[in-house]
Amino acid sequence: MNLDQQCINTIRFLAVDAVQRAKSGHPGTPMGAAVMAYTLWDRALRHNPRHPAWPDRDRFILSPGHASMLLYALLHLTGYDLSLEELRNFRQWGSKTPGHPEYGLTPGVEMTTGPLGQGFASGVGMAIAERLLADHYNRPGHEVINHYTYAIVSDGDMQEGVTSEAASLAGTLRLGKLIYLYDDNDIQIEGPTDTVFSENVARRFRAYGWQVLGPIDGQGPEAIDTAVRSAQAETGRPSLIICKTVIGYGSPAQATAKVHGEPLGEENVRAAKNTLNWPQEPAFYVPDEVYAHMRKAIERGQAAEEDWQQRMEAYGRAHPDLAAKLDLQLRGDLPNGWDHGLCNLFSDGSQPIATRAASGQALNTLAQRIHALTGGSADLAPSTKTIIFGYGDFGWQEYCGHNMHFGVREHAMGAIASGMALHGGVIPYTATFLIFSDYMRPPMRLAALMGIRVIYIFTHDSIGLGEDGPTHQPIEQLMNLRAIPNMTVIRPADATETVEAWRAALLNTDGPTALVFTRQKLPVLDRTALPPAEGVQQGAYVLWDSTADSPEVILIGTGSEVHIALEAGKDLATEGVKVRVVSMPSWELFDQQPMDYRESVLPSAVRERVAVEAGMTLGWEHYVGLDGAVVGMRSFGASAPAEILSERFGITAHNVVAQAEALLRR
Amino acid sequence: MNLDQQCINTIRFLAVDAVQRAKSGHPGTPMGAAVMAYTLWDRALRHNPRHPAWPDRDRFILSPGHASMLLYALLHLTGYDLSLEELRNFRQWGSKTPGHPEYGLTPGVEMTTGPLGQGFASGVGMAIAERLLADHYNRPGHEVINHYTYAIVSDGDMQEGVTSEAASLAGTLRLGKLIYLYDDNDIQIEGPTDTVFSENVARRFRAYGWQVLGPIDGQGPEAIDTAVRSAQAETGRPSLIICKTVIGYGSPAQATAKVHGEPLGEENVRAAKNTLNWPQEPAFYVPDEVYAHMRKAIERGQAAEEDWQQRMEAYGRAHPDLAAKLDLQLRGDLPNGWDHGLCNLFSDGSQPIATRAASGQALNTLAQRIHALTGGSADLAPSTKTIIFGYGDFGWQEYCGHNMHFGVREHAMGAIASGMALHGGVIPYTATFLIFSDYMRPPMRLAALMGIRVIYIFTHDSIGLGEDGPTHQPIEQLMNLRAIPNMTVIRPADATETVEAWRAALLNTDGPTALVFTRQKLPVLDRTALPPAEGVQQGAYVLWDSTADSPEVILIGTGSEVHIALEAGKDLATEGVKVRVVSMPSWELFDQQPMDYRESVLPSAVRERVAVEAGMTLGWEHYVGLDGAVVGMRSFGASAPAEILSERFGITAHNVVAQAEALLRR
Repeated sequence: MNLDQQCINTIRFLAVDAVQRAKSGHPGTPMGAAVMAYTLWDRALRHNPRHPAWPDRDRFILSPGHASMLLYALLHLTGYDLSLEELRNFRQWGSKTPGHPEYGLTPGVEMTTGPLGQGFASGVGMAIAERLLADHYNRPGHEVINHYTYAIVSDGDMQEGVTSEAASLAGTLRLGKLIYLYDDNDIQIEGPTDTVFSENVARRFRAYGWQVLGPIDGQGPEAIDTAVRSAQAETGRPSLIICKTVIGYGSPAQATAKVHGEPLGEENVRAAKNTLNWPQEPAFYVPDEVYAHMRKAIERGQAAEEDWQQRMEAYGRAHPDLAAKLDLQLRGDLPNGWDHGLCNLFSDGSQPIATRAASGQALNTLAQRIHALTGGSADLAPSTKTIIFGYGDFGWQEYCGHNMHFGVREHAMGAIASGMALHGGVIPYTATFLIFSDYMRPPMRLAALMGIRVIYIFTHDSIGLGEDGPTHQPIEQLMNLRAIPNMTVIRPADATETVEAWRAALLNTDGPTALVFTRQKLPVLDRTALPPAEGVQQGAYVLWDSTADSPEVILIGTGSEVHIALEAGKDLATEGVKVRVVSMPSWELFDQQPMDYRESVLPSAVRERVAVEAGMTLGWEHYVGLDGAVVGMRSFGASAPAEILSERFGITAHNVVAQAEALLRR
Repeated sequence: MNLDQQCINTIRFLAVDAVQRAKSGHPGTPMGAAVMAYTLWDRALRHNPRHPAWPDRDRFILSPGHASMLLYALLHLTGYDLSLEELRNFRQWGSKTPGHPEYGLTPGVEMTTGPLGQGFASGVGMAIAERLLADHYNRPGHEVINHYTYAIVSDGDMQEGVTSEAASLAGTLRLGKLIYLYDDNDIQIEGPTDTVFSENVARRFRAYGWQVLGPIDGQGPEAIDTAVRSAQAETGRPSLIICKTVIGYGSPAQATAKVHGEPLGEENVRAAKNTLNWPQEPAFYVPDEVYAHMRKAIERGQAAEEDWQQRMEAYGRAHPDLAAKLDLQLRGDLPNGWDHGLCNLFSDGSQPIATRAASGQALNTLAQRIHALTGGSADLAPSTKTIIFGYGDFGWQEYCGHNMHFGVREHAMGAIASGMALHGGVIPYTATFLIFSDYMRPPMRLAALMGIRVIYIFTHDSIGLGEDGPTHQPIEQLMNLRAIPNMTVIRPADATETVEAWRAALLNTDGPTALVFTRQKLPVLDRTALPPAEGVQQGAYVLWDSTADSPEVILIGTGSEVHIALEAGKDLATEGVKVRVVSMPSWELFDQQPMDYRESVLPSAVRERVAVEAGMTLGWEHYVGLDGAVVGMRSFGASAPAEILSERFGITAHNVVAQAEALLRR
């Protein structure tokens, strides 16, 4: 057995043994795709196991995350900080080797994968970030950003819609440094792939504008190496290399769905080791020569990074200002004075303005200082107000433009934004109507799980959008975003809170933020008479008290309904009720506050509480309990002018007053 | 102007005038696609305006629902029960002409559309239902099911991932009676389509296995007519007819994004009428000869339906049993004795069994009597236990098989199921892991809005799935399904409740039901000692009281956590605490019960309540208020064996006891 085959079999059996030991996992893909993965890592991938975060490294994504042991084996063998002991602890509590690869947990894992299609689509985002930075920062003789984005993708990835969306956009954008190896093994869980997937994948990808190579022999290192070189040589199109492989290669059950998702079983492990001439014992066997060969990656990686550092130094001497800016962006830091001009955007006495429009002004103000801000909309930019004026369009003619156009592809938009954030150097934002957040939940959840800074702009946030009707009126979406762990949702009440919402989003580096804005105009709260909008940073704050005494009733509103709460509060006050109005733009930020702050806003003794929000009432008992009332939606909306809808669905100050009075009468 | 042109211009200007009058809406697509729509409806569509629900009618879907006035104009002109007055009330409260077409509200609207891609994908479901019924029921000389499914689809539809998924599956399934007209107008909201969508759509669809016709002149009735005939002639492949059109045809702003989504404005309305030689006044003008021509649809439709009825009668004479079964299915009724054998499935003393496995048995029992049950999984059938044994696979070789294979395409699966339900004659079910409900939220929401019977099976419903880790462990998904208006979510505690959950799902004809099942085995509750599982039908019921006295503390559990609640209850009882354990499989069913029943289960005087559910705690204050406690998840899960996860995340009887004791000590 030659050295390549030894390395490949080491990878295969590390996976097989780990799955067997864990009594769960997916051996089939590591066995089948080991040649592809090994060849790519051995011959092409530019990475430094000793410094996984080196900015100009090639990116590698394992889109079928269930094949995680393939990646863990590669990371261990090439010298990342991932011991053999960790591989033995595959899928155990506290290990660095969870069932699916997790970003931030395991050194060298570029992205959390598992839900199919996400890796494919987020890789496109990484390639976009690379092109954007390269186009903006590289100078003749100074190629400081110049790397590939690779992925292994599977049949399942190919069937997911998000993959189609991302592939179509990658083709349009001519992302020549995107190189995907397709593990085409003809098998999926329910049986042979062609019973559900008879399409011609090569033709489909050519239609998208990709270079398609193969089908090649996915068990042949030379064929793979040659194809990767051809892919690298094609600079004007992304490349898909179709690799014919055999799932579970070497097992008696190879080429069947049986080897996909469960341990081979001791007998088949023995048989597979026999078939591939691998020693039965010990388990987790790594020949010395395999270590010796594969750990050369360290040396190569350090040399590559050092070369890059020298180039960066030369660049810094030639273009010191650019180098400083690039460095800042790559670190993910905000420049000094990044929020300059933000506070004064909406002086007291501003005319009524929709929060989407206020957001547009905030974004444009911020973008003047924060060069990293890059994003766009899923074909709704005029409505979401997310164009950064004067900063060009991101496209193949000009990759350094800041305004991205995702097309009507919300799902890919979300996944691409994650890829951009993971790549680093950019702070991505996305935009669409709140209702269409439903189209992009999988990547939002992954972003929350990964803890990365992505900013989701969602406008048209309630029945207040009016005539477009129930298909377009979000009801449950707001609460559903709040339910995602580590997602921060902010729904500001007016232009002044909108500015603060943006500030919070940029400062939230540990997870994504959803900014939720109105279509309709709202008054700008008079901050000379009311507390400052900085209260947004605490999630909720007392907007108005009718008296210095303890309140009899507390009205809690978010977004556009804060104005309803305030109106209701003033009405109640004229009746002599001691009332407090709380603006609560963000549950998450509020719930993170110390108990005494929360108690100061919502004294536990005051159980007469009315929440008002033009969304599903479910969940609001979190603040109003069983003794309070919720004014909100209990059904889908309807098509009519917004004012009529508010009346018909009872989202009115009148109704809030009635609910409060009913509580007080009890 | 010839009669065709008169009809086409009538459609155009009904749309233009309605949008202008409503001061909102989308005139561009009706103006550009009027020729396609008119030609299809005038020359090909077999429908009966006087009986829109005739089962063997052709189906027509307007996938870009924002062009609703195009459909409303056609419905009015061909004689559906939709008056000109309704068109004048476009987008107003209480009208039958909402901003986007709504199924169930407007006669002749086959489906609610608006969110892009959904119409495209659900049409595939309609064509599937047609083939399934035809293959099962037609007999030589008796073609009683035989119709086309048509749709107009837009650039936006083509960009959505769900369209790609559905198109790939439609090609695999060789749905020859599916005929889509693509309104290829080169414009979308953010500008020219090619800046975001440079792919070759024709090549893409050929790769899927479709017949692609055109591009043809989308303004030429003869070209469209010819293409539709060619599409009808191709019986082995779905057909896409690419029609080059001009958005906003006739307006000075034609072929720009400006005409997409707002009224033309009075000046441009005038100019457009001038350009197309249309009288300026009156608005909503319909020439008599247009009515005379287009209302011939009534006569044609009645003749066609009568012909079908005669064929049905002949079929009934030749095949009385089949005819009776078909009739029952088309009415959506369940056969007599449909639930026979269900009650006895899990006798007392059954061995522990996962609810997913119990569901598989229930499904197989039901399918023996309910021939309409048809569905499948997104490539997880072995795990979701959703194969109906002995009933074949649905595929192009045998369309009458009941087991569908959706591939890894959750989003299209959901939309296709809706199309099947809308078509009628089948009761569709889908299946995947609960975590992947995130991939199919848009069609689930539309199904809830339409009020149609679709059954979603979601297994692997918590961290109880174990080692696959946080990418696969649902946390917020359960609550997020509950938040959808008109969605019924049922999470049974054991095999006996699973049976009742299935019963509830089949009886719920006004909306979709999500059935949520475990991966892990659960004990079967001993119904000789505990109340019957029929309590599921009330959503929640008292499972166990430690004493006949009023309880001091109530423990509420769902699904697998009912066993934890029961164990905790018994532990507390041994300490002398008066405790009640409530099984609450369905919030929606419980909240629909009369107040006195709800009070009997959860007496309002008892505020010491602990809810336990291995999902996000958010929302549970609905039942436990501010005085209770929730044992659940507050973060993402982790990769480890299930028992360890339960311990680490505190989803244990021990923790429930501790929470209850803390409440009682207060």
